[in-house]
Order: sequence, then C-alpha cells, then structure tokens
Amino acid sequence: VSKRAAIAGRLKAVRRALVERGAAALFVPSSDPHLSEYLPSRWQARAWLSGFEGSAGHMAITRDRAALFVDSRYWEIAEQAVAQSGIEVVRVLRHEPQHEIWLCSALNAGDSVLVDGASIGVVLGEALRKGLASHAIELRFDADPLDGVWLDRPALPRAPVFEHPEGHAGRNRAEKLRLVRDRMQMSGATHHFLSSLDDLAWLLNLRGSDIDYNPFFIAHALLALDGAQLFIAGGKLGHAIEAALHADGVTLRDYGSAFAALSALPAGSRVMLDPARVVLAARAAVPDHAVVIETSNPSTLIKARKTDHEIAQIRETMIEEGVAFCRFYSQFEKSLATGRVWGEYEIHERIAAERARSPLFVTPSFASTAAFNANGALPHYSPRPDQQEQIRGDGLLLVDCGGQYLGGTTDVTRVWPIGQITNAMRRDVTLALKGLIALSRASFPRGTPAPALDAIARAPLWAEGIDYRHGTGHGIGYFLGVHEGPHYLGGPISPHSALESGVVLTIEPGVYRLEQWGVRIENVLVTVPRTDRGFGDFLGFETLTLCPIDTRCILPQMLDPAEVAWLDSYHATVRDRLAPRVDGEAWAWLRERTQPLCAQEPGN
Amino acid sequence: VSKRAAIAGRLKAVRRALVERGAAALFVPSSDPHLSEYLPSRWQARAWLSGFEGSAGHMAITRDRAALFVDSRYWEIAEQAVAQSGIEVVRVLRHEPQHEIWLCSALNAGDSVLVDGASIGVVLGEALRKGLASHAIELRFDADPLDGVWLDRPALPRAPVFEHPEGHAGRNRAEKLRLVRDRMQMSGATHHFLSSLDDLAWLLNLRGSDIDYNPFFIAHALLALDGAQLFIAGGKLGHAIEAALHADGVTLRDYGSAFAALSALPAGSRVMLDPARVVLAARAAVPDHAVVIETSNPSTLIKARKTDHEIAQIRETMIEEGVAFCRFYSQFEKSLATGRVWGEYEIHERIAAERARSPLFVTPSFASTAAFNANGALPHYSPRPDQQEQIRGDGLLLVDCGGQYLGGTTDVTRVWPIGQITNAMRRDVTLALKGLIALSRASFPRGTPAPALDAIARAPLWAEGIDYRHGTGHGIGYFLGVHEGPHYLGGPISPHSALESGVVLTIEPGVYRLEQWGVRIENVLVTVPRTDRGFGDFLGFETLTLCPIDTRCILPQMLDPAEVAWLDSYHATVRDRLAPRVDGEAWAWLRERTQPLCAQEPGN
Repeated sequence: VSKRAAIAGRLKAVRRALVERGAAALFVPSSDPHLSEYLPSRWQARAWLSGFEGSAGHMAITRDRAALFVDSRYWEIAEQAVAQSGIEVVRVLRHEPQHEIWLCSALNAGDSVLVDGASIGVVLGEALRKGLASHAIELRFDADPLDGVWLDRPALPRAPVFEHPEGHAGRNRAEKLRLVRDRMQMSGATHHFLSSLDDLAWLLNLRGSDIDYNPFFIAHALLALDGAQLFIAGGKLGHAIEAALHADGVTLRDYGSAFAALSALPAGSRVMLDPARVVLAARAAVPDHAVVIETSNPSTLIKARKTDHEIAQIRETMIEEGVAFCRFYSQFEKSLATGRVWGEYEIHERIAAERARSPLFVTPSFASTAAFNANGALPHYSPRPDQQEQIRGDGLLLVDCGGQYLGGTTDVTRVWPIGQITNAMRRDVTLALKGLIALSRASFPRGTPAPALDAIARAPLWAEGIDYRHGTGHGIGYFLGVHEGPHYLGGPISPHSALESGVVLTIEPGVYRLEQWGVRIENVLVTVPRTDRGFGDFLGFETLTLCPIDTRCILPQMLDPAEVAWLDSYHATVRDRLAPRVDGEAWAWLRERTQPLCAQEPGN
Repeated sequence: VSKRAAIAGRLKAVRRALVERGAAALFVPSSDPHLSEYLPSRWQARAWLSGFEGSAGHMAITRDRAALFVDSRYWEIAEQAVAQSGIEVVRVLRHEPQHEIWLCSALNAGDSVLVDGASIGVVLGEALRKGLASHAIELRFDADPLDGVWLDRPALPRAPVFEHPEGHAGRNRAEKLRLVRDRMQMSGATHHFLSSLDDLAWLLNLRGSDIDYNPFFIAHALLALDGAQLFIAGGKLGHAIEAALHADGVTLRDYGSAFAALSALPAGSRVMLDPARVVLAARAAVPDHAVVIETSNPSTLIKARKTDHEIAQIRETMIEEGVAFCRFYSQFEKSLATGRVWGEYEIHERIAAERARSPLFVTPSFASTAAFNANGALPHYSPRPDQQEQIRGDGLLLVDCGGQYLGGTTDVTRVWPIGQITNAMRRDVTLALKGLIALSRASFPRGTPAPALDAIARAPLWAEGIDYRHGTGHGIGYFLGVHEGPHYLGGPISPHSALESGVVLTIEPGVYRLEQWGVRIENVLVTVPRTDRGFGDFLGFETLTLCPIDTRCILPQMLDPAEVAWLDSYHATVRDRLAPRVDGEAWAWLRERTQPLCAQEPGN
C-alpha cells in the first residue's frame, strides 16, 4: 500500500467513526497525556493520519475536509509531506488559534467535535471549547475517538528507569520533594498532580528512555504533603530504585489509575496543578468537593535556576562536547581537503559517534541537522540516510546538534564554509553573529521577562531588513529537555519568564534564504549577576558552549571593535578550556580555528 | 481643619459605612465610569480619601487599615502625600495585583468587600472578584458605597461640546461610523457599547473640556447598525451639533440612562464591548437573552493608525510647537545670561503662553513638568505656584510638556544645562540620547508588537547598569489623549499591539538619580514603511517633534559615528522646518542650538 493510499484509508476510517458517533469533526492535537515535546509513537495520531511527522502541528478532520495547522518552522515541510493527499496546510503565525477559526468556519451551529480528553492540555482544550461554543459547536471528549480506528496502535513504551547519580544530580530526591512541598504549603495546597515528564524526572532524580532525545519515563504523580504516589507501568523500575523511592515516601501505582486517584481525593482537598502541563481528562477527574489551584508547577521554576553544582557540571560537559567537535571537524576538514565527498547524514552520524566517546554522554538531545546550502534554509530540516544531500561543490553547511550528558543537556549550531563561499553568505553569517554578540554582551535588570530581550538579538538583522521566523532562544534542562520553559527568548511575556541568575538558555539568531542557504549561530549561556550600580540587581550572560565560530564565514569589516573583542575573547576561552584535552590534528585544528580576528588577513 | 484631620474624618466615615453595610473593606479603584486617564473631580474618591493626587493608584480601606497601591512613578510621591496618615503605601511593579494580595491577607474567609460597580472596569473587577473568591471573600457592587459618606461630592462636569473642524479631522463622522459598523458586522454584532471618551470624541468628531488636558466630553454611546444613541447630560450640545448628529442618525439620551438602555436590548442582540474600557455595572446590565462579544473597540485600532491627512496636520502642528520653543528658550537663555532667576512654575507658564500664541492651540495635553536637579529625578513631578523651585546655581533642568492642537496632540521632553553641569550629568544625558537614537533608527517587521521594541531603547542604558522604571513610550491620539493604546513601548505584549504604518507614539528613555538629577529625552514619532528586502514588510520611524536636543549636555566621544550622523541630521531637519517661521533672537537661538556636532569644540 502506498503512503498516499494508507492515509486515504485512515481518513476514511475516521469519517466512518464520525458518522457512527454523530460528530461533525475530529480534532487531533499534537500532544500526549504528558504534553511532551516529543511524542511516543502511541500518541503520534496526527503523523499516522496525515503523514506529516514534524514535532508540532494539530490536525482537524471533518466529513469532507482535513487540515494541518503548523507554525512557521514547518510551513514548507508540511506542504511537502501532505502534497496530493487532499489535506490542507494552514499556516499559523504567533500562536493564532487557526484550528479554532478553521473548525468554526467549516462546521455549523449544533455540530459537535470529538477530541481525546486524555491527550489535550487544559489550556488548549478550554480555549477550543470556548471558541467553538461561541459558534454553538460542542467539544466532546467522551471517549477516545481513535478506538476502533487505529487498529495497530503502538503500545505504551516500557523502557527501564535509572537513577540520575547524585554526583551529577546535586540535590537529592528528599531535598527536591521538600522544596516542592514548601511551595505547595505556601499556596495552601494539600496535593499536587504532575504529568510533565521533565518535572517528574527532575523531582525523583530518575531518568528513562521512553521518549526520543529526552531522558524521560512515562508516569504521572500525585504528591501529598506527607507522601506521594507514582503512576508508572510495571516492570520499569528495578528493586533498588523501588526501595529508594519507598524510603522517600513514594508509593508505586499502576499507570492507568492516575486519573482515578484524582477522582478519589477526599473532601477539602486543595490540589495544585498546572493547566499548561495537565490534560483535560485529569482536570475533569478532580471531584467537586476538592478545590483546584491552577498554577505553574513549582518544580518548573526551581529547576530552571541551575544550582552552582549543576553549572559547574555543565561547564565540564561543554568541554566533553567541545573535544568531540575538535576531533570531528579536524577529520572532516582534512577529508574535504583530500576531495572526499561526505553526506549530510554521515556528518550527523560522525558527530554523534565523537560525542559518544565521552563517558558522560547518554543520547542526542534532538534530531540533529546537517544541512547544506538550500537545506539550511529549512530551519528544522534533518537529513535521512536515504535522502541525504552530498556535501559537494561550494556553499554553507549548517550543523545544529546537541547531546544528553549526565552533567547537562547541550544544543549548538554553527555554519562551516565548503569550498568557496560568497560575500553574500559571509554577510548573512556576520549579521547572525552580530545578533548573537549583541544579546550575549547585554546587561539587564534582574526580573526582566526573557521574551523582552528578543529584540536585542534581532535588531542588527532588522536593521538590514532581515528577520527569522523562530524564537531567539529557549531555556534548556539539566540532563532533561532541550527545550524547557519558562524562559523563552520570544513569544508572549509570561508572568513566570522573569530572569534570575542561574538560568541556562540558548541564543540562536539566523538568516534563511529560501532555496539558497541558511545561517544560524547558537550558543548555550547562563545568566550571571552583574555589579549593582545604584539601579538594583543586574544580570548578564556567561557563554557555556565551547565551539569555534568559523571566521572564514565572517566579514570582519562589518564588526565594530567591541564585537571583534567579544569574538576574540570567546575564541581564547574555547582554546584555553579545550587545549588540555586535545592533541595532534584536533589540536592543530583548534589552534587554527580560534585565531583572533586581528591576527588574520581580511577575507579569503 | 488640617488636611490630616480631614483625611482621618473621611476614613472614619467610610468605616462607619462598612459597619452599617456589614462589609469588611472598601476598594476604591483609580477610575471612573469611562475608565479615563484623568478623572473629573466627581470620581476622584481615592484622592479625597487619601490626599494622594497622582494619576493612578487604587486604595483599600478595612475597619483598621488602609493602603494605597501605586506604580513606580509614584512610589516616592505617594509616601510623601500620605506621611503620618496611617495609610500604607504598597509598591506595585509590573502590574502585579498587590491590592488583591493585600486584601486577601488583611481579611478573613466569609468577609465581603464593597466597590462601586459603575467606576470599576470589567477586567480589574473580574480579576479582583476571582482573586478574592479563591480566599472565600465576596466582592459586592450592590450600590455606590460612598453614598452618604462623600457629602460634598462634586457634580458631573457640564462644559460645552464643540465640533472638530473637518479640515483638521479629515474623515467625517458618517465615514467613521461606517468604518466601525463594518467591524461590527465582521464580528456578527448588532450593537456596540462605548464608554471610552477618546473613542467617542474620535467617532463623533466632537470635542469637549470635561476632563483636564484631554479634549473629551462625558458620555456613553450605544451603536446599532442603523442608528446610535448618545447618552450625554443636557445643555452640553448646541443646536447646530444636535442637528448634525441627528442627520447622522445619532439620537440624544440622558447620561444616566445608558446602563438601562443596555438592560433593554432585545432578545437575540449581540453587543460588542471592550472589557478593558467598560465598567462592571455596564457589563452586568446586558440581559441574559443577549450575547456579549468581548473585544477591543474597533475605533481604538482605527484611530491609532493616523491617516495621511492627519500625519500632514501633525507635521504642521510640530512646526507651531517648535516655533513656541524657539521663542521661549531664546528668552529664557538670554534672561539667564543676565542673572535673572526663574522659577519652575514660571517656566511652565511661559512655555504654555508661547504655545497659546498658535491659532491651532487648545490646551496643554498634560500637567507639564519643569524640574530642576533633584526634582527631575521624580518622573512625574509637577511644579506648583506655591512650591516652585528657583532655577539658581548649576544643574540640569528637565522640561516635559505638550499641547492639544486642532491638528494633533504633542508631548516632548528635553534637558537644558543651567550654569555649569558635570560630566556625570552629561554621561546620563548621552546614555538617554543613545537609547532614543537606537530605537528611532531601528527597523522591524510590520506586525511586531510595540512592547517587544522596548529593550532596544533600554539596551544602551542597561549596558551601564542603568534602568528607568517607566515604559519607553506610548501611543498618542490626534487631538485626543496624550496616552492612547494599544501601542505601548513596554508592558505586556497584547494581541492588538502589533505595529502597522501610521502609528504615532513617543520614545522617552531616561535616567533618574534620586536626590541628584533626572534626565529624559522624548520625541513623538510615526511608523513608516521601509523597503521589503525579501523578508516581508518592514517599518521604521520618522521623528515628528521639532525641538533641539541641547548638545552642551552631551559627551560626543560617547556617540558612535552613526549616532552623531543621526543627531546632526535631526538638527538639520529642525532648523530647516522652523527657519521660515522664526526671526531675530529666536532664529539666532535656533541656529546656535542646531549646529552639527562635528562643527563644535568638544566639551565646554
């Protein structure tokens, strides 16, 4: 069966179910019961129904139409994925609820829309319910609408869970539980329900591999002030972990009984939950005799501020990663010089292999990108073994990759020159670099919302009429998710996005010229205190990533003296930190690529 | 009776009323039935009860405590105003609901809080109601709680209403009504209720003088698709205006009958109203058989984008204002040179007098500031005739003033050197100037939310550890309010703050050194299209204000060449536009103060 025929058959089955259930449409959110960034295949209903496998994008299916709603990262990719399937691609900008608008215009008053209440978040679900209600359309989450439709649906992941060793984790489980319970008591909560896997992994100092790229395990938890229940599939925990959890007051329950435990809360309970990180079915399970306190998970804010121990570990991890780059790029450049042609996927694999030599390495932290020329203009392009572009001729190679290490999570993007590159390319790289430097050097008052800093990185590109259609950066977990809130450089200003010291995040401005080339330069940084000069506490950034920024791609005359000084100082740091760990060709490469700009001939 | 004794007596009367009504507290919002920026004295209950007369700040009174909640502009001023009255000043940062937190901690479950439903906005009132409810405290708006307490309460203002002449207004009333009704139909609304005085004045091309500084008249309106009711006190409109309104389908009704008209809406009505600009009592008057469509007023967005006609008028108005500055400052400097001492209030009066010589001038647009040295460090200081500081000795004079003209509303701030000034002062002025220039020169994609640009102006000051505790700028009306949404440079990113071309706003970074001096430089600018270079529509700014920035207050070595070029080009524009209109001493002054930096000796 061709992919196109398979998709057609699945849409037909959905429409049959719509008729049987008397519904006009099915809404398929791009989410699972844990509102994870990467979905286990069991919950990849949208990919199964559309063939579009991007990391985000809702879907709606009526009796005669179907649509995918994707943000700007995926506009081009989604069009390609659903070509000739009859599925429309609706472009979403700035979090507009296009799915709501589309459903309201496609349906009539009195119609109803099905959704799986166990896989749609409270915030998205409530907004959709209200939006539809204003057009007299009902949102129904009575039972899983894919029951009887998705016959070969994958099972729950069952990978084993392991301890995050205390030497890496820093704080122990009992201390973390106490920190969260302190916040519960401050809010007058008796219980706290958690579905978000990053919070659970952090809180319990446990890790797993149920999710691609993220060291998470599938579970829910219900904390009381004097104990906790962990809802997790059997067979995932070893005896040692079970005993350790028991010692910390954590009781094990079946994964499927989490919402029932909420239903059984005694009268007078005050249960804290985060509507952005809990599904509608969980929220709805809380009985009327209990009070829901809607607030962000305390652990989200606590873990966003890394401890000194964690920051020290991340500095070590960056050395591990930097050494891998020196080894990979020295081999890559040597090989290019001999005329051997590499493929994008091969680069991706070779970097992963160099990273894996570190004893601290666990897995990649996302689907890495090695994108040559026009492929680099698709911000979330990933090469596949069967479709890789050969790195042949002249142009820019964009590499975006990262790792999960026991001592932190990494994410780095660089562009490298292949053969001869043009000054138009160098100009774009220099502008992205100017954006990176502008924000990396910035100071700002403690408490500034992270999104408010976005424009500082964009301003040098805006001045040339250039913009990039993604955020300037994102918070990053500690051996957890590579994208973690609440600190995003871009998007709406949330009440929790106020910056404090110890927040680890990326800065990654870019320039994307469709069908030509793409540029992005990305570092991981941590906020650090600056001297108070009479206007209150100020913060600045310390760059953590240790990887040369290839000066062959830069037009030095576009940089002002302060920018040149920043770049030279950065390269001196990279060289000093990595030098003790590399030798031979890797060291020669590092020395060459970290030459100060002032010592180089202009252009090449 | 001393002020302190009077306040004590008023608080006692409130507490007596609390006991009589069985309530635990009174909440007094800083608002009126029109949610105006400047309140007619009839609705200045907070000032009457506390003695603090700032433009913003809620108050709460319990049986044994009282508190004022003020934003950073008023922290120092409010402390002074309520000293020794027993009223606490609670400092509010970033729109935190401190009043809610304070009430919840001061009261007990089961208590109730009174508020006047006719003077509290839907948004503020609903948020307060929910916040209190989560602590089992009830918000009651059953009847005006100051009835029987405020015995000498001022009556409704009764100033006459006048036409905004069509030559200045541009669009006529029928066209504006049609534009708004188009938006009503797009939203499926049958009615539209308006209480906001800027919207009403714009929509009807009428102006009044019921409000200080704003050319507004007190009224509500209920638009249908084929007619409109204007609720306004009798005797304010002349026969000609009544006839003109009648011709445009506008029926006159008594001011007090507005909420009753909402109650009388027929079944099936769909009434559009802006919860940020309508009071709770109006929202509550809509019957259950009608649907409320909550959205921002269409007129708010329409009038924020000035027409080409309006922008041309504003350019003319800026010449009128610039001429007044040349005349005032040339006299002022000449007089200073002869040793005569001026008072701050005298400066304020003299500038107003020079402005008033323009045939287009109507009134000042706000309480202007002339603040010498330490007074300049209080961002909203205004001199009074009885308390004015004499401009004597050395230091910085900060002047912030603006006018209502038939062809637009102005707002400008400059600092002037008196005697010898220090390089520390010059450094602060130069940093504020760098902030102004950075944003004035910026380009950005069409649709960028205005608050996202805030950091561009702050970055040069942040780099030196300096911040200012107010927004970077605000939208400004066209012979309307001097502060008009939805475009604020700062604060939360609202869905309506996306910038389009033709938006007129201020940029006004500052440096405030408490008990030393204050610096602020403010221009009015308009957004203009920039060339599309392949990344979509871009915008930039054109500066409209025509007033020299005194280069004697600047350290030229702190400016980079692009900043010097901006300043020299600005001064060339100021000189070219004003030169045909000034002569004699005013011209000599203008020529001297608009010399390019490159032609000057460093320092002085």
